[in-house]
Amino acid sequence: MIRLHVRNPLTAGAGLALEPDQARYLTSVMRRGVGDEVLVFNGADGEWRARLAEAGKRGALLALVEQVRPQAVGPDLDLVIALVKRTRLETIVEKAAELGARRVRLVITERTNADHTRIERLQAIATEAAEQTGRLDVPEIVAPLKLEKMLSTWNDRRLLFCDEAGDAPPVLDALPLTARGRGPEPWAILIGPEGGFSPAERDRLRALPYATAASLGPRILRADTAAISALTLWQARLGDWA
Amino acid sequence: MIRLHVRNPLTAGAGLALEPDQARYLTSVMRRGVGDEVLVFNGADGEWRARLAEAGKRGALLALVEQVRPQAVGPDLDLVIALVKRTRLETIVEKAAELGARRVRLVITERTNADHTRIERLQAIATEAAEQTGRLDVPEIVAPLKLEKMLSTWNDRRLLFCDEAGDAPPVLDALPLTARGRGPEPWAILIGPEGGFSPAERDRLRALPYATAASLGPRILRADTAAISALTLWQARLGDWA
Repeated sequence: MIRLHVRNPLTAGAGLALEPDQARYLTSVMRRGVGDEVLVFNGADGEWRARLAEAGKRGALLALVEQVRPQAVGPDLDLVIALVKRTRLETIVEKAAELGARRVRLVITERTNADHTRIERLQAIATEAAEQTGRLDVPEIVAPLKLEKMLSTWNDRRLLFCDEAGDAPPVLDALPLTARGRGPEPWAILIGPEGGFSPAERDRLRALPYATAASLGPRILRADTAAISALTLWQARLGDWA
Repeated sequence: MIRLHVRNPLTAGAGLALEPDQARYLTSVMRRGVGDEVLVFNGADGEWRARLAEAGKRGALLALVEQVRPQAVGPDLDLVIALVKRTRLETIVEKAAELGARRVRLVITERTNADHTRIERLQAIATEAAEQTGRLDVPEIVAPLKLEKMLSTWNDRRLLFCDEAGDAPPVLDALPLTARGRGPEPWAILIGPEGGFSPAERDRLRALPYATAASLGPRILRADTAAISALTLWQARLGDWA
């Protein structure tokens, strides 16, 4: 069944006018007509079954039928990713949504070539991936900050720092086991640019009390692969895959 | 340093004429000139340092200097992947090379929409990814077979079958630990099409004595994400990331 992320509050019996893009997608692209059902979620009110009540040139109106899943969110996991080239960054955002990251924070490091990106486009990709993967929230895309600036306001969230160069232990060994019955602490996974971190950045990161360095195997990984692998291992070890 | 996969045997002092595409890439795209060094490998003779001895309109000639790494291959791991749409299939092949798969075998299942693909293009992507990731072999791309045909000639290699529907244990729990000091057995990871396996296929797979069903978490993953996540977890648990 088609799932749509909406901004409206969701309550029994309410009507819901879709945004023009969503109305077009539902009726013209996916050929849904009056009486057909979709699922909607807004990140706060769970997932609802809704019926297409009006569909025409002036838009589409849904009638909410019933809540089918209560609101739930996954573990508190951020992906902090250096700005890489557009197509790989878009892949990373899509995959972060599928793999349950709660936020994607963009970072500018010494060896990062770009200094801006189209946040709205990335947010749209995150929303579409959240619709398709079945989650009940949409990862927030956070505008780029320089690494030093980000670290200067860090809130003690634990940081998994994927260190290609050096002797860091494998991710599965580096991540602590969570005590049975307790959820994981808030974590962030930091993935550098394709040129890696500078020696000064590595020293800085390794000295942080909240940081854990870890290795992603013996081969050189592109940034998108490194992000997906690290998110996977975190979810499998500490997150909601266990 | 630039790495090139070549077909020639590699021995000390030998000269090596590059294929026209590689010569163009090295001299025109990457602007390397006579005296510059590259690394070459052929999947059999390890990695060699080579010096550009001639570069001109008629091609490029390398002189082999010395072996810098002896030949080595990673664990015997196949990725068996249903034909999915072209861009995702190309991503999967690139990532399989980075994540150390020895072969990528294509399969046609009941819910697979495609029945052919351009093997040569996929092989070129695998070669380029192998060059960049630093491995000393190139994954072999094996032409598509129907699932039943593939299983009818299966050679008892263990099979990790990623089962979205159902109650399979998480991959990390499903994979056996390898006895210390022993390498892993040969394995294959099977990823179905985005529509999943049919009920008949699932029953068939679950009944195979060499198959292990496992889950990749609570969200719906696209085929490329599922392939990367499963390869990652296998390498982290049984392969050369441990």
